[in-house]
Amino acid sequence: MQEVRAFIEKFVKTSEEEWTAFQKKLRYKEFDSDEFFLKEGQVCKHAVFIEDGAFRFSKVNNGTELVTAFFFTGDFLSDYESFLTQSPSKYYVQALKKSNVYLISKKDLNELYSNYPTFERLGRLFAERLFLIMNKRLDTFLYETPEARYAELVNRNSKLLQEVPQYMIASYLGVKPESLSRIRKRK
Amino acid sequence: MQEVRAFIEKFVKTSEEEWTAFQKKLRYKEFDSDEFFLKEGQVCKHAVFIEDGAFRFSKVNNGTELVTAFFFTGDFLSDYESFLTQSPSKYYVQALKKSNVYLISKKDLNELYSNYPTFERLGRLFAERLFLIMNKRLDTFLYETPEARYAELVNRNSKLLQEVPQYMIASYLGVKPESLSRIRKRK
Repeated sequence: MQEVRAFIEKFVKTSEEEWTAFQKKLRYKEFDSDEFFLKEGQVCKHAVFIEDGAFRFSKVNNGTELVTAFFFTGDFLSDYESFLTQSPSKYYVQALKKSNVYLISKKDLNELYSNYPTFERLGRLFAERLFLIMNKRLDTFLYETPEARYAELVNRNSKLLQEVPQYMIASYLGVKPESLSRIRKRK
Repeated sequence: MQEVRAFIEKFVKTSEEEWTAFQKKLRYKEFDSDEFFLKEGQVCKHAVFIEDGAFRFSKVNNGTELVTAFFFTGDFLSDYESFLTQSPSKYYVQALKKSNVYLISKKDLNELYSNYPTFERLGRLFAERLFLIMNKRLDTFLYETPEARYAELVNRNSKLLQEVPQYMIASYLGVKPESLSRIRKRK
Protein backbone atom coordinates (compact mmCIF):
# COMPACT_ATOMS: atom_id res chain seq x y z
CA MET A 1 0.00 0.00 0.00
CA GLN A 2 3.01 2.27 0.33
CA GLU A 3 2.80 2.97 -3.43
CA VAL A 4 -0.67 4.42 -2.86
CA ARG A 5 0.61 6.69 -0.12
CA ALA A 6 3.59 7.74 -2.26
CA PHE A 7 1.17 8.59 -5.07
CA ILE A 8 -1.01 10.68 -2.74
CA GLU A 9 2.02 12.43 -1.26
CA LYS A 10 2.84 13.79 -4.72
CA PHE A 11 -0.23 15.99 -4.16
CA VAL A 12 -0.58 16.54 -0.40
CA LYS A 13 1.31 15.72 2.80
CA THR A 14 -0.69 13.30 4.98
CA SER A 15 -0.42 12.84 8.73
CA GLU A 16 -0.42 9.30 10.15
CA GLU A 17 -4.03 9.80 11.24
CA GLU A 18 -5.08 10.91 7.76
CA TRP A 19 -3.26 8.07 6.03
CA THR A 20 -4.76 5.52 8.45
CA ALA A 21 -8.23 6.83 7.64
CA PHE A 22 -7.50 6.63 3.90
CA GLN A 23 -5.93 3.20 4.11
CA LYS A 24 -8.99 1.76 5.87
CA LYS A 25 -11.04 2.58 2.78
CA LEU A 26 -8.81 0.69 0.35
CA ARG A 27 -9.69 -2.81 -0.82
CA TYR A 28 -7.18 -5.08 -2.55
CA LYS A 29 -8.28 -6.92 -5.69
CA GLU A 30 -6.69 -9.02 -8.41
CA PHE A 31 -7.83 -8.94 -11.99
CA ASP A 32 -7.17 -11.79 -14.40
CA SER A 33 -5.99 -10.99 -17.88
CA ASP A 34 -9.00 -9.82 -19.96
CA GLU A 35 -11.20 -9.42 -16.87
CA PHE A 36 -13.47 -6.37 -16.96
CA PHE A 37 -13.24 -3.55 -14.42
CA LEU A 38 -16.22 -1.87 -16.09
CA LYS A 39 -18.62 -2.49 -18.97
CA GLU A 40 -20.60 -0.07 -21.11
CA GLY A 41 -23.83 0.85 -19.31
CA GLN A 42 -22.48 0.12 -15.82
CA VAL A 43 -21.91 2.93 -13.32
CA CYS A 44 -18.28 3.37 -12.24
CA LYS A 45 -18.48 3.22 -8.44
CA HIS A 46 -14.76 2.84 -7.73
CA ALA A 47 -11.44 4.44 -8.47
CA VAL A 48 -8.47 2.14 -8.71
CA PHE A 49 -4.76 2.45 -8.02
CA ILE A 50 -2.78 0.01 -10.21
CA GLU A 51 -0.10 -1.55 -8.00
CA ASP A 52 1.00 -3.72 -10.89
CA GLY A 53 -0.73 -4.22 -14.21
CA ALA A 54 -2.24 -2.64 -17.29
CA PHE A 55 -5.76 -1.74 -18.43
CA ARG A 56 -7.33 -0.42 -21.59
CA PHE A 57 -10.38 1.76 -22.19
CA SER A 58 -12.35 1.04 -25.33
CA LYS A 59 -15.71 1.80 -26.86
CA VAL A 60 -17.61 -0.07 -29.52
CA ASN A 61 -18.63 2.05 -32.51
CA ASN A 62 -20.63 0.36 -35.29
CA GLY A 63 -19.29 -3.02 -34.23
CA THR A 64 -15.66 -1.88 -34.22
CA GLU A 65 -13.64 -1.61 -31.01
CA LEU A 66 -11.90 1.74 -30.61
CA VAL A 67 -9.19 1.83 -27.95
CA THR A 68 -9.28 5.24 -26.27
CA ALA A 69 -6.80 5.03 -23.36
CA PHE A 70 -4.23 2.89 -21.58
CA PHE A 71 -3.39 2.82 -17.86
CA PHE A 72 -0.28 1.20 -16.40
CA THR A 73 1.44 0.36 -13.08
CA GLY A 74 1.41 3.39 -10.78
CA ASP A 75 -1.56 5.05 -12.48
CA PHE A 76 -4.87 5.94 -10.88
CA LEU A 77 -7.79 4.81 -13.02
CA SER A 78 -11.53 5.38 -13.17
CA ASP A 79 -14.09 6.27 -15.76
CA TYR A 80 -13.97 9.68 -14.13
CA GLU A 81 -17.04 10.98 -15.95
CA SER A 82 -19.18 8.04 -14.84
CA PHE A 83 -17.56 8.14 -11.39
CA LEU A 84 -18.30 11.85 -10.90
CA THR A 85 -21.81 11.87 -12.31
CA GLN A 86 -22.75 8.29 -11.36
CA SER A 87 -24.15 7.86 -14.85
CA PRO A 88 -23.73 4.78 -17.07
CA SER A 89 -20.28 4.41 -18.61
CA LYS A 90 -19.73 4.65 -22.35
CA TYR A 91 -16.62 2.49 -22.07
CA TYR A 92 -15.32 -1.00 -21.53
CA VAL A 93 -12.36 -1.12 -19.14
CA GLN A 94 -10.45 -4.39 -19.26
CA ALA A 95 -7.22 -5.76 -17.80
CA LEU A 96 -4.54 -6.36 -20.45
CA LYS A 97 -2.71 -8.75 -18.12
CA LYS A 98 -3.00 -10.11 -14.58
CA SER A 99 -3.24 -6.92 -12.46
CA ASN A 100 -3.18 -6.09 -8.74
CA VAL A 101 -5.06 -3.00 -7.67
CA TYR A 102 -6.43 -1.11 -4.68
CA LEU A 103 -10.05 0.03 -4.97
CA ILE A 104 -11.74 2.96 -3.24
CA SER A 105 -15.47 3.62 -3.54
CA LYS A 106 -16.98 6.98 -4.40
CA LYS A 107 -18.94 6.89 -1.15
CA ASP A 108 -15.81 6.37 0.93
CA LEU A 109 -13.91 9.02 -1.00
CA ASN A 110 -16.68 11.56 -0.40
CA GLU A 111 -16.55 10.70 3.30
CA LEU A 112 -12.79 11.39 3.33
CA TYR A 113 -13.36 14.68 1.47
CA SER A 114 -15.87 15.80 4.10
CA ASN A 115 -13.86 14.72 7.14
CA TYR A 116 -10.35 15.85 6.12
CA PRO A 117 -9.54 19.16 4.38
CA THR A 118 -6.31 17.47 3.23
CA PHE A 119 -8.31 15.00 1.16
CA GLU A 120 -10.61 17.71 -0.12
CA ARG A 121 -7.43 19.35 -1.39
CA LEU A 122 -6.23 16.04 -2.83
CA GLY A 123 -9.54 15.78 -4.69
CA ARG A 124 -9.11 19.28 -6.08
CA LEU A 125 -5.50 18.75 -7.17
CA PHE A 126 -6.40 15.41 -8.67
CA ALA A 127 -9.33 16.85 -10.62
CA GLU A 128 -7.08 19.67 -11.84
CA ARG A 129 -4.49 17.13 -12.98
CA LEU A 130 -7.11 15.10 -14.84
CA PHE A 131 -8.30 18.28 -16.48
CA LEU A 132 -4.76 18.96 -17.70
CA ILE A 133 -4.41 15.39 -18.99
CA MET A 134 -7.73 15.63 -20.80
CA ASN A 135 -6.77 19.02 -22.20
CA LYS A 136 -3.51 17.63 -23.52
CA ARG A 137 -5.40 14.73 -25.04
CA LEU A 138 -7.74 17.08 -26.86
CA ASP A 139 -4.75 19.04 -28.17
CA THR A 140 -3.10 15.80 -29.18
CA PHE A 141 -6.13 14.70 -31.17
CA LEU A 142 -6.55 18.05 -32.82
CA TYR A 143 -2.99 19.07 -33.50
CA GLU A 144 -0.51 16.19 -33.07
CA THR A 145 0.65 13.39 -35.32
CA PRO A 146 0.30 9.65 -34.58
CA GLU A 147 4.12 9.64 -34.20
CA ALA A 148 3.95 12.12 -31.32
CA ARG A 149 1.12 10.18 -29.70
CA TYR A 150 3.10 6.94 -30.00
CA ALA A 151 6.15 8.60 -28.43
CA GLU A 152 4.01 9.79 -25.51
CA LEU A 153 2.74 6.24 -24.93
CA VAL A 154 6.23 4.68 -25.03
CA ASN A 155 7.38 7.38 -22.67
CA ARG A 156 4.69 6.37 -20.16
CA ASN A 157 5.44 2.65 -20.38
CA SER A 158 8.78 1.31 -21.54
CA LYS A 159 7.29 -2.23 -21.68
CA LEU A 160 4.47 -1.04 -23.94
CA LEU A 161 5.11 -3.54 -26.74
CA GLN A 162 5.26 -6.49 -24.36
CA GLU A 163 2.10 -5.51 -22.51
CA VAL A 164 -0.17 -4.16 -25.24
CA PRO A 165 -1.07 -5.95 -28.49
CA GLN A 166 -0.08 -3.88 -31.50
CA TYR A 167 -3.57 -3.78 -33.01
CA MET A 168 -4.76 -2.00 -29.83
CA ILE A 169 -1.98 0.57 -30.04
CA ALA A 170 -2.88 1.17 -33.70
CA SER A 171 -6.54 1.60 -32.72
CA TYR A 172 -5.57 4.11 -30.02
CA LEU A 173 -3.45 6.08 -32.48
CA GLY A 174 -6.18 5.98 -35.10
CA VAL A 175 -3.92 4.36 -37.68
CA LYS A 176 -3.81 1.02 -39.51
CA PRO A 177 -1.48 -1.66 -38.06
CA GLU A 178 0.81 -1.27 -41.12
CA SER A 179 1.23 2.44 -40.32
CA LEU A 180 2.17 1.57 -36.74
CA SER A 181 4.97 -0.68 -38.07
CA ARG A 182 6.26 2.23 -40.15
CA ILE A 183 6.10 4.58 -37.12
CA ARG A 184 8.04 2.03 -35.04
CA LYS A 185 10.69 1.56 -37.74
CA ARG A 186 11.30 5.30 -37.99
CA LYS A 187 12.08 5.42 -34.24
CA MET B 1 -21.70 40.82 -7.48
CA GLN B 2 -24.74 38.79 -6.49
CA GLU B 3 -24.44 36.85 -9.77
CA VAL B 4 -20.98 35.67 -8.65
CA ARG B 5 -22.36 34.47 -5.34
CA ALA B 6 -25.28 32.75 -7.07
CA PHE B 7 -22.79 31.00 -9.35
CA ILE B 8 -20.69 29.84 -6.39
CA GLU B 9 -23.77 28.69 -4.50
CA LYS B 10 -24.50 26.24 -7.31
CA PHE B 11 -21.46 24.34 -5.96
CA VAL B 12 -21.23 25.13 -2.21
CA LYS B 13 -23.21 26.98 0.45
CA THR B 14 -21.26 30.00 1.73
CA SER B 15 -21.63 31.72 5.11
CA GLU B 16 -21.66 35.55 5.24
CA GLU B 17 -18.07 35.45 6.53
CA GLU B 18 -16.93 33.22 3.66
CA TRP B 19 -18.69 35.30 1.04
CA THR B 20 -17.23 38.52 2.48
CA ALA B 21 -13.74 37.01 2.26
CA PHE B 22 -14.36 35.94 -1.34
CA GLN B 23 -15.92 39.23 -2.35
CA LYS B 24 -12.91 41.19 -1.11
CA LYS B 25 -10.76 39.39 -3.67
CA LEU B 26 -12.92 40.32 -6.66
CA ARG B 27 -11.96 43.21 -8.91
CA TYR B 28 -14.41 44.76 -11.38
CA LYS B 29 -13.20 45.43 -14.93
CA GLU B 30 -14.71 46.48 -18.23
CA PHE B 31 -13.45 45.18 -21.55
CA ASP B 32 -14.03 47.05 -24.78
CA SER B 33 -15.12 45.11 -27.83
CA ASP B 34 -12.05 43.32 -29.29
CA GLU B 35 -9.95 44.01 -26.18
CA PHE B 36 -7.70 41.09 -25.19
CA PHE B 37 -8.02 39.32 -21.85
CA LEU B 38 -5.00 37.18 -22.76
CA LYS B 39 -2.54 36.78 -25.62
CA GLU B 40 -0.52 33.78 -26.74
CA GLY B 41 2.66 33.54 -24.65
CA GLN B 42 1.21 35.39 -21.64
CA VAL B 43 0.55 33.60 -18.36
CA CYS B 44 -3.11 33.55 -17.29
CA LYS B 45 -3.01 34.99 -13.77
CA HIS B 46 -6.75 35.57 -13.33
CA ALA B 47 -10.04 33.79 -13.60
CA VAL B 48 -13.00 35.87 -14.68
CA PHE B 49 -16.73 35.80 -14.04
CA ILE B 50 -18.62 37.35 -16.97
CA GLU B 51 -21.35 39.55 -15.51
CA ASP B 52 -22.36 40.64 -18.99
CA GLY B 53 -20.51 39.97 -22.22
CA ALA B 54 -18.94 37.43 -24.55
CA PHE B 55 -15.39 36.22 -25.22
CA ARG B 56 -13.75 33.90 -27.70
CA PHE B 57 -10.69 31.67 -27.45
CA SER B 58 -8.63 31.28 -30.58
CA LYS B 59 -5.24 30.08 -31.67
CA VAL B 60 -3.25 30.94 -34.76
CA ASN B 61 -2.17 27.96 -36.83
CA ASN B 62 -0.08 28.63 -39.96
CA GLY B 63 -1.42 32.17 -40.11
CA THR B 64 -5.07 31.07 -39.84
CA GLU B 65 -7.17 31.87 -36.79
CA LEU B 66 -8.94 28.84 -35.32
CA VAL B 67 -11.73 29.65 -32.86
CA THR B 68 -11.70 27.01 -30.12
CA ALA B 69 -14.25 28.17 -27.52
CA PHE B 70 -16.88 30.77 -26.65
CA PHE B 71 -17.82 32.11 -23.20
CA PHE B 72 -20.96 34.12 -22.46
CA THR B 73 -22.77 36.02 -19.69
CA GLY B 74 -22.83 33.96 -16.49
CA ASP B 75 -19.81 31.82 -17.45
CA PHE B 76 -16.56 31.54 -15.54
CA LEU B 77 -13.58 31.90 -17.85
CA SER B 78 -9.83 31.32 -17.69
CA ASP B 79 -7.20 29.60 -19.75
CA TYR B 80 -7.40 26.95 -17.06
CA GLU B 81 -4.28 25.11 -18.26
CA SER B 82 -2.15 28.27 -18.15
CA PHE B 83 -3.88 29.34 -14.91
CA LEU B 84 -3.17 26.00 -13.16
CA THR B 85 0.37 25.53 -14.40
CA GLN B 86 1.31 29.23 -14.68
CA SER B 87 2.80 28.45 -18.08
CA PRO B 88 2.46 30.60 -21.23
CA SER B 89 -0.93 30.43 -22.88
CA LYS B 90 -1.38 28.92 -26.34
CA TYR B 91 -4.47 31.05 -26.89
CA TYR B 92 -5.76 34.51 -27.61
CA VAL B 93 -8.80 35.42 -25.49
CA GLN B 94 -10.65 38.45 -26.76
CA ALA B 95 -13.93 40.22 -25.94
CA LEU B 96 -16.51 39.86 -28.71
CA LYS B 97 -18.41 42.90 -27.39
CA LYS B 98 -18.22 45.37 -24.52
CA SER B 99 -18.05 43.12 -21.44
CA ASN B 100 -18.21 43.61 -17.66
CA VAL B 101 -16.39 41.07 -15.54
CA TYR B 102 -15.12 40.29 -12.05
CA LEU B 103 -11.51 39.13 -11.84
CA ILE B 104 -9.90 36.97 -9.16
CA SER B 105 -6.17 36.26 -9.12
CA LYS B 106 -4.65 32.81 -8.74
CA LYS B 107 -2.76 34.00 -5.66
CA ASP B 108 -5.98 35.19 -3.97
CA LEU B 109 -7.83 32.04 -4.95
CA ASN B 110 -5.09 29.86 -3.43
CA GLU B 111 -5.33 31.93 -0.26
CA LEU B 112 -9.08 31.29 -0.10
CA TYR B 113 -8.49 27.55 -0.71
CA SER B 114 -6.06 27.41 2.21
CA ASN B 115 -8.16 29.43 4.64
CA TYR B 116 -11.63 28.02 3.98
CA PRO B 117 -12.42 24.31 3.43
CA THR B 118 -15.60 25.50 1.69
CA PHE B 119 -13.53 27.12 -1.04
CA GLU B 120 -11.19 24.14 -1.27
CA ARG B 121 -14.35 22.17 -1.99
CA LEU B 122 -15.50 24.79 -4.49
CA GLY B 123 -12.13 24.41 -6.23
CA ARG B 124 -12.55 20.64 -6.37
CA LEU B 125 -16.12 20.75 -7.66
CA PHE B 126 -15.16 23.39 -10.19
CA ALA B 127 -12.17 21.38 -11.45
CA GLU B 128 -14.41 18.30 -11.70
CA ARG B 129 -16.96 20.30 -13.70
CA LEU B 130 -14.28 21.59 -16.07
CA PHE B 131 -13.06 18.04 -16.51
CA LEU B 132 -16.57 16.98 -17.51
CA ILE B 133 -16.88 19.90 -19.95
CA MET B 134 -13.50 19.08 -21.49
CA ASN B 135 -14.43 15.42 -21.68
CA LYS B 136 -17.65 16.26 -23.46
CA ARG B 137 -15.71 18.49 -25.83
CA LEU B 138 -13.33 15.68 -26.69
CA ASP B 139 -16.30 13.36 -27.34
CA THR B 140 -17.91 16.07 -29.43
CA PHE B 141 -14.82 16.48 -31.59
CA LEU B 142 -14.37 12.75 -32.00
CA TYR B 143 -17.92 11.54 -32.39
CA GLU B 144 -20.37 14.38 -33.03
CA THR B 145 -21.46 16.24 -36.14
CA PRO B 146 -21.08 20.00 -36.71
CA GLU B 147 -24.93 20.12 -36.47
CA ALA B 148 -24.86 18.77 -32.92
CA ARG B 149 -22.06 21.16 -31.97
CA TYR B 150 -23.99 24.09 -33.40
CA ALA B 151 -27.11 23.06 -31.46
CA GLU B 152 -25.07 22.95 -28.24
CA LEU B 153 -23.80 26.49 -28.87
CA VAL B 154 -27.27 27.91 -29.61
CA ASN B 155 -28.51 26.17 -26.49
CA ARG B 156 -25.88 27.98 -24.40
CA ASN B 157 -26.60 31.41 -25.89
CA SER B 158 -29.88 32.25 -27.53
CA LYS B 159 -28.38 35.53 -28.80
CA LEU B 160 -25.50 33.67 -30.46
CA LEU B 161 -26.03 35.06 -33.95
CA GLN B 162 -26.24 38.65 -32.71
CA GLU B 163 -23.13 38.37 -30.57
CA VAL B 164 -20.79 36.19 -32.61
CA PRO B 165 -19.79 36.76 -36.26
CA GLN B 166 -20.71 33.78 -38.40
CA TYR B 167 -17.17 33.18 -39.68
CA MET B 168 -16.08 32.60 -36.06
CA ILE B 169 -18.88 30.12 -35.47
CA ALA B 170 -17.89 28.30 -38.67
CA SER B 171 -14.25 28.22 -37.51
CA TYR B 172 -15.30 26.79 -34.14
CA LEU B 173 -17.37 24.09 -35.85
CA GLY B 174 -14.57 23.31 -38.27
CA VAL B 175 -16.77 23.95 -41.31
CA LYS B 176 -16.80 26.46 -44.17
CA PRO B 177 -19.14 29.48 -43.78
CA GLU B 178 -21.36 28.07 -46.57
CA SER B 179 -21.82 24.84 -44.59
CA LEU B 180 -22.86 26.87 -41.54
CA SER B 181 -25.59 28.53 -43.62
CA ARG B 182 -26.86 25.09 -44.62
CA ILE B 183 -26.81 23.91 -40.98
CA ARG B 184 -28.79 27.01 -39.94
CA LYS B 185 -31.36 26.53 -42.72
CA ARG B 186 -32.02 22.95 -41.68
CA LYS B 187 -32.93 24.08 -38.14
